[in-house]
Amino acid sequence: MNYQLNQIPFRTQKPRQSGLTMVMDKGLSLREAEDFLEVAGAYTDIIKLGWATSYVTPNLREKLNIYRNAGIPVYFGGTLFEAFLVRGQFDDYRRVLDDYGMEYAEISDGSIDIDHAVKCEYISKLSRQVTVISEVGSKDAQKIFAPYKWINLMRAEIEAGSWKVIAEAREGGNAGIYRDSGEVREGLIDEILTQIPQERIIWEAPQKAQQVWFISLAGTNVNLGNIAPSEVISLETIRLGLRGDTFSLFLDK
Amino acid sequence: MNYQLNQIPFRTQKPRQSGLTMVMDKGLSLREAEDFLEVAGAYTDIIKLGWATSYVTPNLREKLNIYRNAGIPVYFGGTLFEAFLVRGQFDDYRRVLDDYGMEYAEISDGSIDIDHAVKCEYISKLSRQVTVISEVGSKDAQKIFAPYKWINLMRAEIEAGSWKVIAEAREGGNAGIYRDSGEVREGLIDEILTQIPQERIIWEAPQKAQQVWFISLAGTNVNLGNIAPSEVISLETIRLGLRGDTFSLFLDK
Amino acid sequence: MNYQLNQIPFRTQKPRQSGLTMVMDKGLSLREAEDFLEVAGAYTDIIKLGWATSYVTPNLREKLNIYRNAGIPVYFGGTLFEAFLVRGQFDDYRRVLDDYGMEYAEISDGSIDIDHAVKCEYISKLSRQVTVISEVGSKDAQKIFAPYKWINLMRAEIEAGSWKVIAEAREGGNAGIYRDSGEVREGLIDEILTQIPQERIIWEAPQKAQQVWFISLAGTNVNLGNIAPSEVISLETIRLGLRGDTFSLFLDK
Repeated sequence: MNYQLNQIPFRTQKPRQSGLTMVMDKGLSLREAEDFLEVAGAYTDIIKLGWATSYVTPNLREKLNIYRNAGIPVYFGGTLFEAFLVRGQFDDYRRVLDDYGMEYAEISDGSIDIDHAVKCEYISKLSRQVTVISEVGSKDAQKIFAPYKWINLMRAEIEAGSWKVIAEAREGGNAGIYRDSGEVREGLIDEILTQIPQERIIWEAPQKAQQVWFISLAGTNVNLGNIAPSEVISLETIRLGLRGDTFSLFLDK
Repeated sequence: MNYQLNQIPFRTQKPRQSGLTMVMDKGLSLREAEDFLEVAGAYTDIIKLGWATSYVTPNLREKLNIYRNAGIPVYFGGTLFEAFLVRGQFDDYRRVLDDYGMEYAEISDGSIDIDHAVKCEYISKLSRQVTVISEVGSKDAQKIFAPYKWINLMRAEIEAGSWKVIAEAREGGNAGIYRDSGEVREGLIDEILTQIPQERIIWEAPQKAQQVWFISLAGTNVNLGNIAPSEVISLETIRLGLRGDTFSLFLDK
Repeated sequence: MNYQLNQIPFRTQKPRQSGLTMVMDKGLSLREAEDFLEVAGAYTDIIKLGWATSYVTPNLREKLNIYRNAGIPVYFGGTLFEAFLVRGQFDDYRRVLDDYGMEYAEISDGSIDIDHAVKCEYISKLSRQVTVISEVGSKDAQKIFAPYKWINLMRAEIEAGSWKVIAEAREGGNAGIYRDSGEVREGLIDEILTQIPQERIIWEAPQKAQQVWFISLAGTNVNLGNIAPSEVISLETIRLGLRGDTFSLFLDK
């Protein structure tokens, strides 16, 4: 840190299991990726190349190298898994992961309907090849699950081999764990946290108000995802109680 | 593409008449312009330097060269034409276009009232100097045209020499073809498309929901404009059915 | 300017007392800072490193040098002052300012409660070390001051030694001089301007509609703050009547 401030809350260190910041890269140039790492690399635990952007970005191998050289794991968004699966190309997907030297992969069912036992088989199968992150929740704002359903899904996916489960929010933060308005479904989160260990969940929280909400509920070292590269510094100050929104949260009374 | 996916919808190739992506540059630095081209140049058909930003940006000639060297046409926003015209400086405008070697220009009447026959004369006159894009619709959210009026205006401007007509949305997507809320005026679009060939229209669609709407209505290769440089990759995945929003649109049933 | 347009409103020149554009840097990389200066340095009067981002950004001294070499004053956001003060580390704060060679500082009470006479003492004390900018208004959207209160606070802070007073808006533009909806509290602004010289106030106006509103009310050369680096060019065109929103404002009738 650039100077000494007292009463800064404890922050876990990389590589960490809780307090993760997962960043979404929607198509940065190589130089932009370098700039992002210069500023926020120290606060970024894992990077997702959003949905299937990896199909069309021209700088894929070079960018993967930039992130790997910085020691930050990187993976393709779950929509890419779904795109291969729905086309009957799951084996091609595995080969693509190998070809690009991927060590992590996301399995989701946000855009397709898939029997949950089958999803768990894919998690199990893929977790013998890479570290699997799986996503629970639909991108469809109309599909609302009851809390016990969320809990059962998360538990089954962890048992099947997921390293972490991600609670879906869409990039705009208006589905899954959020209401249409972008507000958090508070009762849902509370209930999930009574049953699933917090360090196994990454909450998608693309908007500042959502980040503040989760940090207020679950503390500095909550796992948060879908953070924009330009917002990682802001998030780190929110975690440390150094932005207005959480300013008094960690101070001695 | 970086790997093989089946059932990807047909995408027209550059230089294309339909499926155009028109990008709005609101004042990129030279390095940012290069970064944008690195990532999204292959998916960008034409670039607008937004409204009269070209008056104040210090890097104008160099930036025009960067875009030209990438083989992508570039033009000044229509508000610049209006700014010259309202000051009685139309001849100065023509000289500026020459001085900067512009091969395209936009003619609009979003901020000024101008008799439509007179507007068409300007289109006709300028189309002997450059390729003209003309814009229909007011920046004033209060000015609502009936569909037949939109159709008559578009048809007259095409006959006067416009290469394409742009349907105005403002940068924020809250006027012209959109309601105040940013929602598309659907009936209007449907009716326009019965009378004007789709490849002659560029729909301004700065917001993701609008892009999704037009692609769902008119397909992968609809012309869309006012796209932010950082959103071109996202738009390309939406066109190809590789983002959640259009995921099932192009798949065999 | 890149070409000649008539009837452009008078714009004050740097270094200026009115017509200031204060830009908020939330964590730019060094290259991004250079890019911002290339495009918008000529239109940027002063730069704030937002809230306590300076605590976590890894490139602090280098970035301060980049801005200083461009001749643009830079200061740490007021939340940093509050973070030191609330921890009983005010003397440390003064040493940090010295250590980093800061010539400006912000004093605010947006996140803490502090007796106003005490705040004015800090302004007075710090103004013997650096040029002080002080901020009036709470980040708490629930704390609404009556106009006479705003006027008294601003006047007292100017008398205590503030070079400028900033009217708080939060980054999102939804507190202080703004309603929750982001709309300007018009009557409040009008009344403040009857009592406090306009050149002593910087209005935080992060959103375009707010910038348009203040320029329409108080003219091209109103002081505006919390402008995003990528929006400075847009703001300059709005000041000059070269964007749709203020297009007719400065034209002869």
